[in-house]
Amino acid sequence: MTPTRPVFYVSDGTGITAETIGHSLLTQFADTRFTTDRIPFVDTADKAREASQRIREAGEAAGVRPIVVNSCVDNELYRIIAESGGLMLDIFAPFIEPLERELGETRKLRVGQAHGMVDFEAYHRRINAMNYALTHDDGMIMDFDDAEIILVGVSRAGKTPTCVYLALHYGICAANYPLTEEDLEADRLPAKLRPHRHKLFGLTIDPIRLHQIRQERRPNSKYSQLDTCKREVAQAEHIFRNERLTTLSTTHTSIEEISSKVLTTLGIHREMF
Amino acid sequence: MTPTRPVFYVSDGTGITAETIGHSLLTQFADTRFTTDRIPFVDTADKAREASQRIREAGEAAGVRPIVVNSCVDNELYRIIAESGGLMLDIFAPFIEPLERELGETRKLRVGQAHGMVDFEAYHRRINAMNYALTHDDGMIMDFDDAEIILVGVSRAGKTPTCVYLALHYGICAANYPLTEEDLEADRLPAKLRPHRHKLFGLTIDPIRLHQIRQERRPNSKYSQLDTCKREVAQAEHIFRNERLTTLSTTHTSIEEISSKVLTTLGIHREMF
Repeated sequence: MTPTRPVFYVSDGTGITAETIGHSLLTQFADTRFTTDRIPFVDTADKAREASQRIREAGEAAGVRPIVVNSCVDNELYRIIAESGGLMLDIFAPFIEPLERELGETRKLRVGQAHGMVDFEAYHRRINAMNYALTHDDGMIMDFDDAEIILVGVSRAGKTPTCVYLALHYGICAANYPLTEEDLEADRLPAKLRPHRHKLFGLTIDPIRLHQIRQERRPNSKYSQLDTCKREVAQAEHIFRNERLTTLSTTHTSIEEISSKVLTTLGIHREMF
Repeated sequence: MTPTRPVFYVSDGTGITAETIGHSLLTQFADTRFTTDRIPFVDTADKAREASQRIREAGEAAGVRPIVVNSCVDNELYRIIAESGGLMLDIFAPFIEPLERELGETRKLRVGQAHGMVDFEAYHRRINAMNYALTHDDGMIMDFDDAEIILVGVSRAGKTPTCVYLALHYGICAANYPLTEEDLEADRLPAKLRPHRHKLFGLTIDPIRLHQIRQERRPNSKYSQLDTCKREVAQAEHIFRNERLTTLSTTHTSIEEISSKVLTTLGIHREMF
């Protein structure tokens, strides 16, 4: 059996960029098993030596060369980490020289900046959006004037995580409206949503999946019965079609994919945090 | 004046990996102004041609060569996008060959997998953690048995966004406990937290910053007065010292940095979503 390969995400900041690209790379190699470890905030020679030793020891223990996904931009720190003997994948290096040539500018050594707090105003926007998502969750506050996006769907269709993701990563005020029994029976959107048509996006889900999710929440209730789920989903989808809402099924869709599709559909562009 | 440089994040999936590394690269070039655009889900030749044309037109309009941060792994799609004439930064290419050699395995072409829904169980954990964070926010439910992390601090010190981030990106059940007037006066942690010492992490904040944040929330209230903020922060920090809690100031710290430090301090390792 092939030994499990140790992977280290090493960074002078949070290590999120290194882990994001590293994870994307590893998913392309399905035959190898990996163990992953994060070594963030490596911003001094001492910390680099510590990291280096930890990597070397992991390699010795596993009997196989570790992989180091590195985002430290400082040459001296890089050199120390490379002494670990791991396979160094330096995630910025290949792009710096072409960018410098194209932009006619030398890159600045800004250690650990990518996920640091650079812009107070942007940070504020992010936190406000987060508060907005939490206070406008589940139809708690029915004032949608400040909403940039309103997700509509039956309970547990994936609205809340998507709203929170949009707030955290794009600073977007996203509200959500759970279709009530009354709405479903009336076969139309409530009057309160009508002035906000251009912000609406419908989320739907496979009834069997919905049944599983609701079972975990309220086992053996009317709410979680498969029949209830089937009926509610059919009624919601009927409303979406009548109202010509763009709709997405969340059944096989990650929170990131839903968010990305909602933004693209509604034509909202915002830089990512 | 240098023209604003158009940047495109092009991907066969959500484009999150491309945007993450692209953003990290651009922050290293402070003299150039960029406009950024995301073109996700480019998974057919037709969509690639559309993307290519959009990039070419943006370059013509700006009078400068666009930069394309690309994560499409398919060679044919890559070729079409490259016809746009933009500077192609192919974020996976430099690492594939060294990894293939090291692992003795050829990478699979798994289009748009990184932020897709690969693992149902992991996805479930993520959604459960998210629900946990929302129902255990702000001391609403005082049962901490299932918590992996409990953030402690005065109101508006940054607990909620951090809990939600930990849930969304690491599937971690993080609760938060806002120190009450009673706790602060008693100069100690409430009894309910004592059995969970090893999960506790203290968040503090500069009183002036706290005052600004609270002012936005409840302007000119006793809650938001600078004097109140100063007193509460001093009392909270006194409790943290007495109880020897690891503490972090959130004043100049991003949500990502706080999360990363909390995980490192409490020795929790979890793969990132």
